[in-house]
Amino acid sequence: MMNTSHSPAQIDTVMQQAAAAFVAYQKTSPVQKAVFLETIAANIEALGDALISKTSEETNLPPARLTGERGRTTMQLRMFAQLLREGSWVEATVDTAIPDKTPPRPDIRKMLVPMGTVVVFGASNFPFAYSTAGGDTASALAAGCSVVVKAHPAHLQTSIMVADAIAAAIASTGMPEHCFQHVTDASFEAGKALVQHPHTAAVGFTGSYTGGRALYDYAAARKSPIPVFAEMGSINPVILLPDTLSTNAESLAKQYAGSITLGMGQFCTNPGILLGIASEGLQAFLQALAKEIGTIAPAKMLHAGIHKAYFEKMKTALQQKGVKLLSQTTTAPGELEAQPVIATVDGAAFLLDPLLREEVFGPYSLVVICDNEAELTAVWRSLTGQLTTTLMGTDADFAAHASLLEIAPAIAGRIVFNGVPTGVEVCASMVHGGPFPASTDSRFTAVGIHAVKRWVRPVCYQNCPDALLPEALQAANPLGIWRLVNNEWVRA
Amino acid sequence: MMNTSHSPAQIDTVMQQAAAAFVAYQKTSPVQKAVFLETIAANIEALGDALISKTSEETNLPPARLTGERGRTTMQLRMFAQLLREGSWVEATVDTAIPDKTPPRPDIRKMLVPMGTVVVFGASNFPFAYSTAGGDTASALAAGCSVVVKAHPAHLQTSIMVADAIAAAIASTGMPEHCFQHVTDASFEAGKALVQHPHTAAVGFTGSYTGGRALYDYAAARKSPIPVFAEMGSINPVILLPDTLSTNAESLAKQYAGSITLGMGQFCTNPGILLGIASEGLQAFLQALAKEIGTIAPAKMLHAGIHKAYFEKMKTALQQKGVKLLSQTTTAPGELEAQPVIATVDGAAFLLDPLLREEVFGPYSLVVICDNEAELTAVWRSLTGQLTTTLMGTDADFAAHASLLEIAPAIAGRIVFNGVPTGVEVCASMVHGGPFPASTDSRFTAVGIHAVKRWVRPVCYQNCPDALLPEALQAANPLGIWRLVNNEWVRA
Repeated sequence: MMNTSHSPAQIDTVMQQAAAAFVAYQKTSPVQKAVFLETIAANIEALGDALISKTSEETNLPPARLTGERGRTTMQLRMFAQLLREGSWVEATVDTAIPDKTPPRPDIRKMLVPMGTVVVFGASNFPFAYSTAGGDTASALAAGCSVVVKAHPAHLQTSIMVADAIAAAIASTGMPEHCFQHVTDASFEAGKALVQHPHTAAVGFTGSYTGGRALYDYAAARKSPIPVFAEMGSINPVILLPDTLSTNAESLAKQYAGSITLGMGQFCTNPGILLGIASEGLQAFLQALAKEIGTIAPAKMLHAGIHKAYFEKMKTALQQKGVKLLSQTTTAPGELEAQPVIATVDGAAFLLDPLLREEVFGPYSLVVICDNEAELTAVWRSLTGQLTTTLMGTDADFAAHASLLEIAPAIAGRIVFNGVPTGVEVCASMVHGGPFPASTDSRFTAVGIHAVKRWVRPVCYQNCPDALLPEALQAANPLGIWRLVNNEWVRA
Repeated sequence: MMNTSHSPAQIDTVMQQAAAAFVAYQKTSPVQKAVFLETIAANIEALGDALISKTSEETNLPPARLTGERGRTTMQLRMFAQLLREGSWVEATVDTAIPDKTPPRPDIRKMLVPMGTVVVFGASNFPFAYSTAGGDTASALAAGCSVVVKAHPAHLQTSIMVADAIAAAIASTGMPEHCFQHVTDASFEAGKALVQHPHTAAVGFTGSYTGGRALYDYAAARKSPIPVFAEMGSINPVILLPDTLSTNAESLAKQYAGSITLGMGQFCTNPGILLGIASEGLQAFLQALAKEIGTIAPAKMLHAGIHKAYFEKMKTALQQKGVKLLSQTTTAPGELEAQPVIATVDGAAFLLDPLLREEVFGPYSLVVICDNEAELTAVWRSLTGQLTTTLMGTDADFAAHASLLEIAPAIAGRIVFNGVPTGVEVCASMVHGGPFPASTDSRFTAVGIHAVKRWVRPVCYQNCPDALLPEALQAANPLGIWRLVNNEWVRA
């Protein structure tokens, strides 16, 4: 039977076991770790429909969406397995000795090594892909770290099923028993104790600003501070440029009505704010968007807490000075259901009201109607750091508004052209992260193979006998990986 | 004339100017930035003997040492210029579109971009290499960041001379006037204001634990926290293994007497603690070390504050229970001069006294005599994070004590075999950093080309028209840099 509460002594036991398991786990070979991750993926698939129906029951997310998310989750596990098999991710860097330099240069060899035990907080809106065996866990296990997951209480049974699948993979592949552990205590105190524990080396979190900031503050206040990678959401500003609006207003409205209401707006990449310059094209877009939104069927949100917060925040936003309701779903929402809503405000009123910059988590979007490019730029720049920002425009638009392209990298980690921010491709080039508060450390991404770099640190060996070096650094390059040797990239 | 104090309004002006300069500076080409860095190097060299004599006067460091350090500083500037000319450091990563995937994969391209304005705090013990135009400044300018240096008051005139050399390089190479600025206010308040300013994007610091921790805490407590890379020193434990002691005691003692007293111990890599297992070999080493230390001539320390702190901390350490004075320089120290000192303690007493783990900045070293490998390991593990740790041993030693090699990466950023930790080679494979408190972020190094990564963040472009992409990401790879394209490293 599982614990649903953990005493401080139990948390300590979990962390002691995780620290001991780290010592053993980091010694396993890259191929052993790859097989472990692949076995987790297979075990999750083997849970079949039982997992999907339990998760749907817990989260109100439809089976089709969950089937897709499960596919993404197992793909991520296999992607990190592939990263381990290929091996170059350790950034092996070699400078050979130069005895006749003054002073003589020693032989120095550097690579990335795992930091220790990583504590992962599951997300309510991604019960598979950002939870128990999600991207944080997969990347940390790939890095060679042991992992302690704090289950999200909104999908506890799902989390237990996945944790059991991981435990079975540990047993069948001979990994150290406690290299992964599952804490089912839902309390705030348990999370705090995990972040404050001396054996915790780093933290991964996906969720609200309030939760992420609290964990960041606990980690920074430690006697020995540790890195926290918290992904805390975003309002993902979208800029609608005049030329494209003048010809594509209707198709843009269709595209954005879909993105705003996808998964009832419960994505961290949901477009919460659209910026345009007053024009006939923008009016046509608003009319078409109003019509589209009216036809969207309400659907249940993830849980009662998110549902309540959505209505409260949405209603507060609508009460702000200058904010006008443009459109809402015409069907009255049922129990736990969200109601998609679009509002408008002019740029001057937006700039006066900091509350309008806050995320309304759900299918709500605010269109800011600006007088000109200068005001639009001011509105854009007034926002805090974002996961994404999007530019919708023709070639003529981009030529006429070149300064926007220069500003965009300072706003967000991902810049989307003529698309929607929802939908995060899992690939090496993805950046899911951005300036604070999109994430607490904009130097890293939470999605894609480079997410592994959050949990590693470089170590160099000076004049180490070749036989004592890790394989990645040995003279013969037995792993056949790409290495920077005397400032040249070589694989031989 | 320079300001020696800055009002809050003046600090604000500096930061506003630096932020505006960043916008212009980041648009300069890699080659333009390279020429800028090379011109700074040439301008520093052109200061000739006047700089060396002024710095020697301010720091009590001998001209020969300063000439070497100046060479390292200009070499670092040219190394980053070379990094910019080669170009691959931006980690360009490309995943091309797959339209028939479900869902379709967009074209995504990622690279590293500069974070904004970096505030650098100069170090007293490296008036060139870690100060005004030192590694932090050079790497941040290479990254494309604007830089504000707070001069170290212990070598203010040196800092002004170097800042003027940078200003001249800005003028002659047509860089934005305020891409580098020099704040000469020595007060704690000025430093705090710089770290807290909303336009500050990151902080580089080299100095004491107290100073670094204070800056880290200010940065973490900001409404929008920023990364701090503080390098806060170390006691750099050295393990002396039995077999090498049995045959090499005298040469080891000579080697370590030199390392402990190099620059009067004023290096962050100074070996402050030596660990050995009680044996005849260790006794022979101690006798030889005592003799060597006795012959070292005292020399002036950097400034009165460091001199006073050295004697206070050294005397406090000698008063701890079980600590015995082994040897000290026989010549009485003159004004501002340090006195090299070696003490011993047994492992059990060391483990009971946390004060003995603290750095005594200067030519003091403590030899911990352990009963066996288990006690030695316990002493080693009781230390906080270190810049370096060193293993002195024969092949037979390493075979007999294999577990020490497994533990070493958790202790420090650099593991030295059969050498001394003093002397930090500037090369790609160097790691100068380590677990807290050696540095505040063990994921980065302060020395070598990869130091540039402290000041950059990844940004990706999704479906961006090719002509609008930065050159590093364009389809034709006009810069000819190494890129990860569809998970393969290619340069074509």
